[in-house]
Amino acid sequence: MNGRPLKDIRTPPPPDYVIAQSVEPLPIQEIAKASGLDASELDLYGQFKAKVRLGVLGRLQSAPNGKLVVVTGITPTSLGEGKSTTTVGLSQALGAHLGQRVFTCLRQPSQGPTFGIKGGAAGGGYAQVVPMEEFNLHLTGDLHAITAANNLLAAAIDARVFHEATQSDEALYRRLTAKPFSAIMRKRLRKLGIEKTDPQSLTTTERRRFARLDIDPNTIEVRRVLDTNDRFLRSVQIGLAPTEKGYERLTGFDITVASEIMAILALSTSIGDMRERFGRMVVADQRGTGEPITADDLGVTGALTALMRDAIMPNLMQTLEATPVFVHAGPFANIAHGNSSVLADQIALKLVGPNGYVVTEAGFGADIGFEKFMHIKYRASGCAPAVAVLVVTLRALAMHGADGGIRAGAESNMARHIENIRKFGLRCVVALNRFAGDSDTDLAIVIDVARSAGAFDAVVSSHFEHGGKGAVALAQAVMRACSAVDGVDGGGVRLLYPLEMSLEEKVSTIAREIYRAARVEWTKEAREKLELLESRGYGKLPVCMAKTQYSFSDDPEKKGAPVDFVLPIRDVRLSAGAGFVYPLVGQIQTIPGLPTRPAFYDIDVDTDSGRILGLS
Amino acid sequence: MNGRPLKDIRTPPPPDYVIAQSVEPLPIQEIAKASGLDASELDLYGQFKAKVRLGVLGRLQSAPNGKLVVVTGITPTSLGEGKSTTTVGLSQALGAHLGQRVFTCLRQPSQGPTFGIKGGAAGGGYAQVVPMEEFNLHLTGDLHAITAANNLLAAAIDARVFHEATQSDEALYRRLTAKPFSAIMRKRLRKLGIEKTDPQSLTTTERRRFARLDIDPNTIEVRRVLDTNDRFLRSVQIGLAPTEKGYERLTGFDITVASEIMAILALSTSIGDMRERFGRMVVADQRGTGEPITADDLGVTGALTALMRDAIMPNLMQTLEATPVFVHAGPFANIAHGNSSVLADQIALKLVGPNGYVVTEAGFGADIGFEKFMHIKYRASGCAPAVAVLVVTLRALAMHGADGGIRAGAESNMARHIENIRKFGLRCVVALNRFAGDSDTDLAIVIDVARSAGAFDAVVSSHFEHGGKGAVALAQAVMRACSAVDGVDGGGVRLLYPLEMSLEEKVSTIAREIYRAARVEWTKEAREKLELLESRGYGKLPVCMAKTQYSFSDDPEKKGAPVDFVLPIRDVRLSAGAGFVYPLVGQIQTIPGLPTRPAFYDIDVDTDSGRILGLS
Repeated sequence: MNGRPLKDIRTPPPPDYVIAQSVEPLPIQEIAKASGLDASELDLYGQFKAKVRLGVLGRLQSAPNGKLVVVTGITPTSLGEGKSTTTVGLSQALGAHLGQRVFTCLRQPSQGPTFGIKGGAAGGGYAQVVPMEEFNLHLTGDLHAITAANNLLAAAIDARVFHEATQSDEALYRRLTAKPFSAIMRKRLRKLGIEKTDPQSLTTTERRRFARLDIDPNTIEVRRVLDTNDRFLRSVQIGLAPTEKGYERLTGFDITVASEIMAILALSTSIGDMRERFGRMVVADQRGTGEPITADDLGVTGALTALMRDAIMPNLMQTLEATPVFVHAGPFANIAHGNSSVLADQIALKLVGPNGYVVTEAGFGADIGFEKFMHIKYRASGCAPAVAVLVVTLRALAMHGADGGIRAGAESNMARHIENIRKFGLRCVVALNRFAGDSDTDLAIVIDVARSAGAFDAVVSSHFEHGGKGAVALAQAVMRACSAVDGVDGGGVRLLYPLEMSLEEKVSTIAREIYRAARVEWTKEAREKLELLESRGYGKLPVCMAKTQYSFSDDPEKKGAPVDFVLPIRDVRLSAGAGFVYPLVGQIQTIPGLPTRPAFYDIDVDTDSGRILGLS
Repeated sequence: MNGRPLKDIRTPPPPDYVIAQSVEPLPIQEIAKASGLDASELDLYGQFKAKVRLGVLGRLQSAPNGKLVVVTGITPTSLGEGKSTTTVGLSQALGAHLGQRVFTCLRQPSQGPTFGIKGGAAGGGYAQVVPMEEFNLHLTGDLHAITAANNLLAAAIDARVFHEATQSDEALYRRLTAKPFSAIMRKRLRKLGIEKTDPQSLTTTERRRFARLDIDPNTIEVRRVLDTNDRFLRSVQIGLAPTEKGYERLTGFDITVASEIMAILALSTSIGDMRERFGRMVVADQRGTGEPITADDLGVTGALTALMRDAIMPNLMQTLEATPVFVHAGPFANIAHGNSSVLADQIALKLVGPNGYVVTEAGFGADIGFEKFMHIKYRASGCAPAVAVLVVTLRALAMHGADGGIRAGAESNMARHIENIRKFGLRCVVALNRFAGDSDTDLAIVIDVARSAGAFDAVVSSHFEHGGKGAVALAQAVMRACSAVDGVDGGGVRLLYPLEMSLEEKVSTIAREIYRAARVEWTKEAREKLELLESRGYGKLPVCMAKTQYSFSDDPEKKGAPVDFVLPIRDVRLSAGAGFVYPLVGQIQTIPGLPTRPAFYDIDVDTDSGRILGLS
């Protein structure tokens, strides 16, 4: 668990995949053993990946937790600030250079963008998870399982609408009951207040109520998903074949990580919890009554759970310096909560023990990923962070500072994020992710501003160039911050809103306290939706803001620390299974496209060695 | 490799998943070791599945092959004749009861139908591959890799059309060459006869030729795929979002196993061969010139290979009686060739050695799966079968016999299949897959008819009820048939057409010799396509008939052994990467739908044990 320092470090660093392939990873069984996992708790996936069985949580039930370090960032730019790289570098420093017990928890990236613009997400330079090609491609198939589950759900909805539209009550009921009532059918009967077990014994009315979900096709909110950057699927008309008899419908595809199934995976605490959440998913409204139709009503809950049974186990990998990593779940950070799984954090905290560290990453900037980490993930996991690390880069600060330069960027954007983090009762360590060519003077300015703004410390880190060795000072600052915390189990942690607050007030609170908006403006549609959700009993859920990551405001062009802006809420949606309501701030793109020169042009396989080339 | 006989057999057999879960499978390493595989040749996927590295073929290069037994069937009915079950039962008998070295090669089933009508495909009763839930769900992710690869290709085509349509030559070229020419770009330059390496040195004309593929959107033949029974995706209008600026297009989705990527996986003999085949795939025609545009031209070949790098390794599992099984590739049996992978057969034949048996299954009836096994798969693998097993059931024969009953069904449909198999120079052993309630008199009639029709032997087999023990007589007949064969390496094997024959003559030969059609009728469109393909140099490929499996003819209602019918060819398509031309006989449904009561209603997970329930 303490890792193994890198030996040969080249300057400047070669391409990511070349670095990754220059180190022979340890067999994953060795990583597992050093982490305190029993061999019987592993399902191997090749030599360098394993799934960890949830039984480990039972075994370590009474063990004390380690300290949880959450890594977040300033408002990101399109250049990338290196949050994953810092998460990995910090872990390598803690383990391989400072001898601490450490675990890293990362999101699994969407596979689509690997072939588009972004490239991979396993970190970079000498701070990477390896084998990076397995991290970026397929991993152990969790995203594929989500694609399969989501699309089974979507197919079940349209098929049901079709069968109901084209069959009489009698034919529908006869076919549905061609076999005895299954468990999920009996659940629906109970929901309808029909206490019968023999299909023959239902009255005509009861048969109709059981067999007809009467889904209003205009209310279907489940979109299909693919883990591909396929812009032509953003909006599609389906059901155009003659066999669908004219029941065509306008819908669209999202990227797989935007599926509610993914958000559920990330928030579930057990397979039973996951199954309950799947069953609660609202897929559409009933015609006339407006009642929510759930996955349970469709009868598909058990099948979804079967498809996701293995995906719920966190995936064990390693850093370049042989410290252990969980890669597990990666929900979209806008329409969902953008954090890796609750289970990975929970298991890792038990494994490192009371003197150890779990470094976990929250997506996008601290106004989004970190806020959701606290209000959504922490509520589900019960695992409070001891400290937050805020990743900054000079080039991003320069962009935020505009004419005022790096200092202005630090005083505006960075300072506000530091303040926000402290509102949650947490210490904030600023990590300056150093790039070749950064000036010492500029770095000193930022450190100065960070401390003035209330950071516990601010440290330059060069893990991209030097691996864990380059992040030792950062790791030491993090350790100091943790040791100074009273009650690492969340004694000092505060949330900004209670669940009892109305949905509207929750949104206002985030807008005011985190974004610093002057006020929130609701469209008529959004306000109606809000009232509907409150009236249906979803008012006690946390809110998950779907906002651009490129600004505190709704306008990605407003860099720095905008004030006096109005936050417009276009619509409000429900993820009843994941357990949050998500207000849409402007248009959110949920499936990317391929650029003119996609990354795939550079990706290949060496057919002799089988090595994958060209991933970055 | 010899397996372990079942101990407790219940009568009547409980549901498939109950039987499967009543036996604790051996750790897959033990199966591998007994099969002669080195531990270093395995990539484990959990406890009971492993991928086998292709290096084993090099190690065993000079080892002699075992005997290949191909299992096929009479014209199937919607009831299912138990071909997979017989394949597994025969293997269990050979290994666990007769002490022979044996390997089974099966297709990986599509996951979609598991939740629809069909249920799983791991065999049934006491003749199954286990764990059957892992066989039926995800396996090691090969189908998911195909989905990802196919859809990356599809997205790349539409994105390219879009970028070319919305950018000037100059902008397009500038973006494509923002980085140096990659290897695949240099390949395209060579194809265009441009021997330059510096992007700046190309002339304006050369830039245009390089940058503009000029795909005619009406000729795009790549459809998207999903491994879901989603009828609403059969025909879809894509590109309807405002961001696609009106470049909408009508297309559709197929089920994943219908992808050309799957056919390529099944026919490839190495990772290099697979990469070459991917590159050759024709995705559309060029506007004006009509030249074929390939995956190489799109620059996506290397990325497809990277996505499929692990999928090319066969998946090792085991039967209920602990004999080894390869589950690898499962191309559609109509628009593709319907057989498991060449690599699985090749590796298995080396592993069993000269006295051992490899039992491999061909999809659909012998008029389709077996014919393609000989003309397409055997040509790619070089592995000739020693004998063919023809699976029949009384209930199917009764359906084929109509008013004439079982005897008429046997004399018509079964007899013709026996004759057809013998045309290839092969002995045919008829396996009567016994069902509870079958009458001994009827079985005796069928044995009699089979022998008269030229079968080497005909044997009743009760593996569904009794496992390998019930298939001992069948296994003994197969062994006798093999031992009597002169030159098991294909000395006696004949093909019905040489590759030099024209495409039209190849189709006529199959129609005449196998289907017994009076003649072939081509639509104008089909004939033009035929001429086009001949003129483009695809005339020397084998043909892969896309015909209903439910009749020798094009009409699924014509049971028995129809004569004097006309075989209509509606269209002709090309799979240049897989290496065949497929004429479409009538309409072929390439993505199934969900019925009113889908199988998913009965599928669930026991949240305590994690066991998947209700799969059949």
